Amino acid sequence: MENTDPPRARGRRPPQGDPVVDRALALLAAFDVRHPALSLAELSRRSAIPPSSALRLASRLVEWGALERGADGRFVVGLRLWEVAALAPRARGLRQVALPYMRDLSEVTRQHILLAVREGDEAVLVERLSTHRAMPVLYYVGGRLPLHSTGVGLVLLAHAPAEFQDEVLARPLVHEPERIPVSAAALRRTLAQVRRDGLAVVHRQAPRPLVTVAAPIFDGDEQMIAALSVLVPEEGADPRALGPAVRTAARAVSRGLGSRIALGSDELD
Amino acid sequence: MENTDPPRARGRRPPQGDPVVDRALALLAAFDVRHPALSLAELSRRSAIPPSSALRLASRLVEWGALERGADGRFVVGLRLWEVAALAPRARGLRQVALPYMRDLSEVTRQHILLAVREGDEAVLVERLSTHRAMPVLYYVGGRLPLHSTGVGLVLLAHAPAEFQDEVLARPLVHEPERIPVSAAALRRTLAQVRRDGLAVVHRQAPRPLVTVAAPIFDGDEQMIAALSVLVPEEGADPRALGPAVRTAARAVSRGLGSRIALGSDELD
Repeated sequence: MENTDPPRARGRRPPQGDPVVDRALALLAAFDVRHPALSLAELSRRSAIPPSSALRLASRLVEWGALERGADGRFVVGLRLWEVAALAPRARGLRQVALPYMRDLSEVTRQHILLAVREGDEAVLVERLSTHRAMPVLYYVGGRLPLHSTGVGLVLLAHAPAEFQDEVLARPLVHEPERIPVSAAALRRTLAQVRRDGLAVVHRQAPRPLVTVAAPIFDGDEQMIAALSVLVPEEGADPRALGPAVRTAARAVSRGLGSRIALGSDELD
Repeated sequence: MENTDPPRARGRRPPQGDPVVDRALALLAAFDVRHPALSLAELSRRSAIPPSSALRLASRLVEWGALERGADGRFVVGLRLWEVAALAPRARGLRQVALPYMRDLSEVTRQHILLAVREGDEAVLVERLSTHRAMPVLYYVGGRLPLHSTGVGLVLLAHAPAEFQDEVLARPLVHEPERIPVSAAALRRTLAQVRRDGLAVVHRQAPRPLVTVAAPIFDGDEQMIAALSVLVPEEGADPRALGPAVRTAARAVSRGLGSRIALGSDELD
């Protein structure tokens, strides 16, 4: 569905039929965390849609509220689109159930609490709770994280279908930002351990020493649908103490989603 | 831009040009809080698009990730749309700055904290923080609230352009759910007081006695862009104590957005 028109080449020609929808979607896809506001020229370039068509389509999206146009003429994503998107069950329902438990975790750890789901071969951050004094991190709600090198990612990958795991493991993988190659065999062992422990623990040295501890969230069909993690500076962190806290919170969320997984033999109540 | 095709009337005819975009947007608009998952028949009926076109368009949206289709065949809003929408500055930037201060307020009051912006003649809830034990309320993130009878709404209306206020005041207004008519003169006095106090206090008896206290948030251009409120059961609530807390948090958020309004003469530091 890539739009292969060379920019400008088809200037004023009215697009025919469904490609218009793809163009409208391409306009939306032109926005990302680094480009939350775009001039018409930028919008045209990033979507590969000629300026005249881009303006006409964008104006239509502005009319509906999917985009908004600032006093400086730049386009941004509109609140009406946000309203509709807030209905996405994978973000909203989950978030609503998880938020109180994330707050509990946050009060205990005073750092970052992340909630993520898998979307294709990446993790998407559905929620982040951070205290005032938490160390700065570059995780944005709506942003993406790699599966093979983050706490939430490893949990999501460990509980993904075996076929999908094989697909990921067949690729050359590196730990960013250090660019250290990841061996498929080592990653496979890590995933087995994550499943066994019900927990992923990841230490990272860059940009600063930190440790993240993540646990899976299950829904009423006992499907793993999300991962919850806590991210703290390595100094003073005790992963053995964080583990039970994260698992407890993840189980509470699962319970809230109708899972009975928390009634296993290792349960106290 | 209403789609005026009678349902089914234009069955398999491929739509021409831009109306396709309107149809795609109509599909998105078919979802709301009460209808977060729709069968093809429901999607067709609610968007007034014939089933064959609705299916074709919806499949395109599914392909891109704007919609997702569950195992039961029903459509829901997709995570990819949510990712793009999370970039909406009026929701995201604001939310990011406000969340830590909302949490402080929440820890003090242990009830509901609301963050809302004005969209047309309603308030849209951009964030809600609630504790486990908070009384149940029907406010959803992404949901709408009336301007003239809620705390956040009154703040948003009080600081809106005078022309817009006149427009709202010219309409017949009632307090829901009691359906008590609101006099324009009384509302105008209320708005003046909200501006003077920097605070709106609203008592409601239904569905249960509660009080909400709301304050405005200003951005770096000193424009009021949002309202922050706390919602507590009336019993035991002390609006005189809540007021300073809400105003302090709202000022902290404004400061975070670049406002210098907090440097007024009534400021201690």
